[in-house]
Amino acid sequence: MGAEARVGILGGGQLGRMLAQAALPLGVDCVVYDDAHDSCAAAYAPVVQGSLADREALERFAVGLDVITFEFENVPAEAVQFLRDTGHLVHPGPLALTTAQDRWNEKRFFRDHGIRTTPFAKVDDEAGLQEAIAQLGLPAVLKARRLGYDGKGQLYLAHPEQAEVAWPALGGVPCILEKVVTFDREVSLLSVRGRSGEVRHYPLVENRHAGGVLRWSQAPALGLPDGMQQRAEAAAERVLEALDYVGVLAIEWFQVGDDLLANEMAPRVHNSGHFSIEGAATSQFENHIRAVLGWPLGETEVSPCMMVNLLGQIPDRGQILSVPGARLHDYAKAPRQGRKLGHVTITGPDMPTVAERARRVRALVEGTES
Amino acid sequence: MGAEARVGILGGGQLGRMLAQAALPLGVDCVVYDDAHDSCAAAYAPVVQGSLADREALERFAVGLDVITFEFENVPAEAVQFLRDTGHLVHPGPLALTTAQDRWNEKRFFRDHGIRTTPFAKVDDEAGLQEAIAQLGLPAVLKARRLGYDGKGQLYLAHPEQAEVAWPALGGVPCILEKVVTFDREVSLLSVRGRSGEVRHYPLVENRHAGGVLRWSQAPALGLPDGMQQRAEAAAERVLEALDYVGVLAIEWFQVGDDLLANEMAPRVHNSGHFSIEGAATSQFENHIRAVLGWPLGETEVSPCMMVNLLGQIPDRGQILSVPGARLHDYAKAPRQGRKLGHVTITGPDMPTVAERARRVRALVEGTES
Repeated sequence: MGAEARVGILGGGQLGRMLAQAALPLGVDCVVYDDAHDSCAAAYAPVVQGSLADREALERFAVGLDVITFEFENVPAEAVQFLRDTGHLVHPGPLALTTAQDRWNEKRFFRDHGIRTTPFAKVDDEAGLQEAIAQLGLPAVLKARRLGYDGKGQLYLAHPEQAEVAWPALGGVPCILEKVVTFDREVSLLSVRGRSGEVRHYPLVENRHAGGVLRWSQAPALGLPDGMQQRAEAAAERVLEALDYVGVLAIEWFQVGDDLLANEMAPRVHNSGHFSIEGAATSQFENHIRAVLGWPLGETEVSPCMMVNLLGQIPDRGQILSVPGARLHDYAKAPRQGRKLGHVTITGPDMPTVAERARRVRALVEGTES
Repeated sequence: MGAEARVGILGGGQLGRMLAQAALPLGVDCVVYDDAHDSCAAAYAPVVQGSLADREALERFAVGLDVITFEFENVPAEAVQFLRDTGHLVHPGPLALTTAQDRWNEKRFFRDHGIRTTPFAKVDDEAGLQEAIAQLGLPAVLKARRLGYDGKGQLYLAHPEQAEVAWPALGGVPCILEKVVTFDREVSLLSVRGRSGEVRHYPLVENRHAGGVLRWSQAPALGLPDGMQQRAEAAAERVLEALDYVGVLAIEWFQVGDDLLANEMAPRVHNSGHFSIEGAATSQFENHIRAVLGWPLGETEVSPCMMVNLLGQIPDRGQILSVPGARLHDYAKAPRQGRKLGHVTITGPDMPTVAERARRVRALVEGTES
């Protein structure tokens, strides 16, 4: 009755929760490592409480695990390196982390691998910010190089005189300045690479953000220019190869006409891939588990599908479940303003039907969001 | 962070496991009641260990639950009645149990509600068996009225002289004799009725048994005669109404040409509905949870799908997962000859593709089955 395999997950938020949820039916038990005592992954996996700086706790956690992975990209690369140095398999590896954790590294990495991005410049001090503004022009966004997510650690600059407020407002930390590009929409590519080098991609997904936070996704993205899927896949493959990557990788893109500009990447399962639990032949979570264990990857075909995030509060469940094709995912997290508490996946026979159903869900969400 | 609702499940086998699994994303926590300490539902729900005859333990289990349900039809009706008498909601109710637990009650119930069955007769002693053989003819199957499942408690009779061996072989318990009917195939109808009386049906599923145990299912069943789905649904609705039923009900049928003969019913989620986790818009497990909580029911549309049981042993996971569209469900049970340890669902773009993939899975299963 012992599990076929055991996977350790650094981080017990909703991504760790859904990884452990996908693992169980495969005969894979997960163990979660988190510094909180009330990790929402606990419904699916035992939680070892500890800090990522606590090497003794990490060692205790790692005992008997076949492989270790993580649910967030801000895991200190030193923790991953420590686990590797003590003989544990960790996927993705430290290079993916150090690349994705730092916006300057990430943008240079894209550029070095022939992937276009928005114009950007490194900013190390206030004078550097003035230089970057002069070089790129405004409007632009000043972003802390590290530890930003969901729009945090960013400031929009419309006028040069905002520079002197912006620099201390972000804490005087190393930043990059990114020119604001007028784009048509945001799309993301979820890719997965196995230990054998096998790669699969999901179809590009369209994502709508507000206030820096993902509100909804549509899979597959409609009306893509010819060849765009293939170009996104080719770029992702260069990234996966260069990082010797194992697991699910998300790359977020701006679509500008026929062009794609890479915005950022996440070396983990991603909110824009949540649709895949119901909308794809194999979910991103199951494929990540398969990949890090060295198991064969699953099919990535997608049926018409939308995903709506539940932020701050979960609307009346009866009303959500009254919408045909709506599937609720409650992360069992305490409500808090703007917090991602769950999502709803909406499926249906065709995209117009799905989109109409999703509008009903969005109306419920927008009526209660806080 | 408290759950939105709490459901108690009598029984912690794979059906209880998959009910609890379906409940969690809805914000519903389950608690399982089982007499074993190593219930396979434990990965998804805390388990209260106790006997169904232990009223004190049942009362402790029931505290704080919104509704109680069960995963197997041999729950003593007295236990359900006791829980109801002490103020707890239990769905389905005792009438469904007493009807389904006894093959004589069940067959009469079908007949009384205008639903055809195979010819049958009550057998209370060996003389009665001889009379029944004279009445129905042979071949026939002698079945204990109570506690049989998966072909257990049954004997096939080809010759009258087998009667005197058969009667004591089944323990001299009350039986029925059922005439063997040459049928084309077995199909099942999964229906779900909510607390408001709302009813949904899944498309008829074709089932293949061997040795009394389900081997594989195909959903939807192909090549159904005109009107057969509607007739099966009308019959199920009479059953659901008559039993004031809440939850998922499975009725197994023999198809004989254009006719359907009811074989038996299960007042619970059913092995022939496992395909619905991936193959239907809403799984039987989620719909059962929604129903017993009085929540709106989910859509029951089905995509081409097959389900293969894993009996006795789970074949090499890498080989299973190499089959496109194959999704593994490992119940985390100890291997034992003939035991249901898991199932594989196979999806695909169309039924010929699904059937070809399912043959690959069946070949793996038949290579290891024990």
